[in-house]
Amino acid sequence: MDKNSTTLWKTTKYHHHLQTIEEDEIARESAMTIVINGTQYATIVCTPNHLEELVIGFLASEGIIRSIGQMRALTIDDVAGFAYVELVNTIEFTERTERWIGSCCGKSREFYLKQDVKTAKTITTRITISTDQALDLMKQFDYIAEAFDRTGGVHQAALAAGNGIISSFIDIGRHNALDKLYGFILQNKLSMKDKCILFSGRISSEVVLKVSKMGGGILLAKSAPTDLALKLADDLHITAVGFVRKNKLNVYTHDSRIYGDVQRNLYFSK
Amino acid sequence: MDKNSTTLWKTTKYHHHLQTIEEDEIARESAMTIVINGTQYATIVCTPNHLEELVIGFLASEGIIRSIGQMRALTIDDVAGFAYVELVNTIEFTERTERWIGSCCGKSREFYLKQDVKTAKTITTRITISTDQALDLMKQFDYIAEAFDRTGGVHQAALAAGNGIISSFIDIGRHNALDKLYGFILQNKLSMKDKCILFSGRISSEVVLKVSKMGGGILLAKSAPTDLALKLADDLHITAVGFVRKNKLNVYTHDSRIYGDVQRNLYFSK
Repeated sequence: MDKNSTTLWKTTKYHHHLQTIEEDEIARESAMTIVINGTQYATIVCTPNHLEELVIGFLASEGIIRSIGQMRALTIDDVAGFAYVELVNTIEFTERTERWIGSCCGKSREFYLKQDVKTAKTITTRITISTDQALDLMKQFDYIAEAFDRTGGVHQAALAAGNGIISSFIDIGRHNALDKLYGFILQNKLSMKDKCILFSGRISSEVVLKVSKMGGGILLAKSAPTDLALKLADDLHITAVGFVRKNKLNVYTHDSRIYGDVQRNLYFSK
Repeated sequence: MDKNSTTLWKTTKYHHHLQTIEEDEIARESAMTIVINGTQYATIVCTPNHLEELVIGFLASEGIIRSIGQMRALTIDDVAGFAYVELVNTIEFTERTERWIGSCCGKSREFYLKQDVKTAKTITTRITISTDQALDLMKQFDYIAEAFDRTGGVHQAALAAGNGIISSFIDIGRHNALDKLYGFILQNKLSMKDKCILFSGRISSEVVLKVSKMGGGILLAKSAPTDLALKLADDLHITAVGFVRKNKLNVYTHDSRIYGDVQRNLYFSK
């Protein structure tokens, strides 16, 4: 993996009750806005490598180009996250997404979609859970997954209080599973003060944004996070916990919401 | 898992050289178009259960509603795949996607995005590979994944000829990994006649559509398919192979492109 693809993140790791703090290698995630003949066409989030191939493939997937000959020029600004495409012919399209720099809670945050500025919120819940509770909730979550998914093809999102899962939803789309959960919370007008959210997949920026919209203070996930997701979680005061498996878990942000019966406290720097 | 979430699909399974044909349980995937106050807003693909929660959560995620009180009515037609939302207030929005029924190759196919009608194509390549080749390619693919992904957080897509991987791309977004591969194919003007595509994730309809656009005749994936993906693969003449792991694989569509040194041929019906 090239250096553009990963970065280091200070991580609080628990293995049973043993706590260590380590610089963990995590996947990078960046927003890139594609500008066609001077007009913003779309903003996508991606791993910032092979951006030329990505832009060409994305435009072909969208039906904008069919061959490389239809592009006159492609300039990529990978610092600002913009790709400027000049096509041989003019095309008509409707702008799909608008990149947006929002000022919110006294900070200048960059969101890649305008609606996120309106809906993402800083989480102020004081809920705390122990590492044992977190591992036990994930065990219940896995138990439900085994019962409900015989196909191996779906994602799962659940709402939990400290001691048990309240409701769980599956979908072939990761965001749909979270949206079903969000709909359930709104329908039942549930308070999120004492709740956490469990998720079967990776912690991407979009997952963190959805958790923020729901008002979730703690996110427990089976898989790895991205750096953009963790920057957002840090900024929005969400406790992002990844790789919750067997007797281990990694706390990436706002680790005061998770406590263990700590036996040792070590700091390893790489 | 409720009956709406899964369906059965006739599957050719290989375990070493033993071939069996079974009715396999796979995840359903359906398109749903959300109509707000009479205007199409978006079309999403999802597991067709808990559709009410999904629509409410999706609209809240998009910033269209903040509470359930902002909806006057919600009617779901789960046969046609439409959700009709009436909001208390009128809102302004730009239509995001347009559902489209395209007539193509003499068949009436329903694509959920207009650009797919233009770009998805029926695959006529006559490439065949053996089960041993398929398993060996996946082994090489895994080897590259181990070398390139130390974070556990990325998807991978690769192009291969019968005997080896030609190029491999990673991304935190599943579709980006495939788009990078597509860009690579276009940049290098590669013929797809004798190539296959490997993918680390699930076989969803969007994955099959991308493979079709690239002109791939064989898709080898690590994970499970959805029914919509398989209907599209069947229709577009793509050989979809899932759960390619260790010494097993499942061929779901156009199985003549995969051959094994068959020892037994059994038919189990459930």
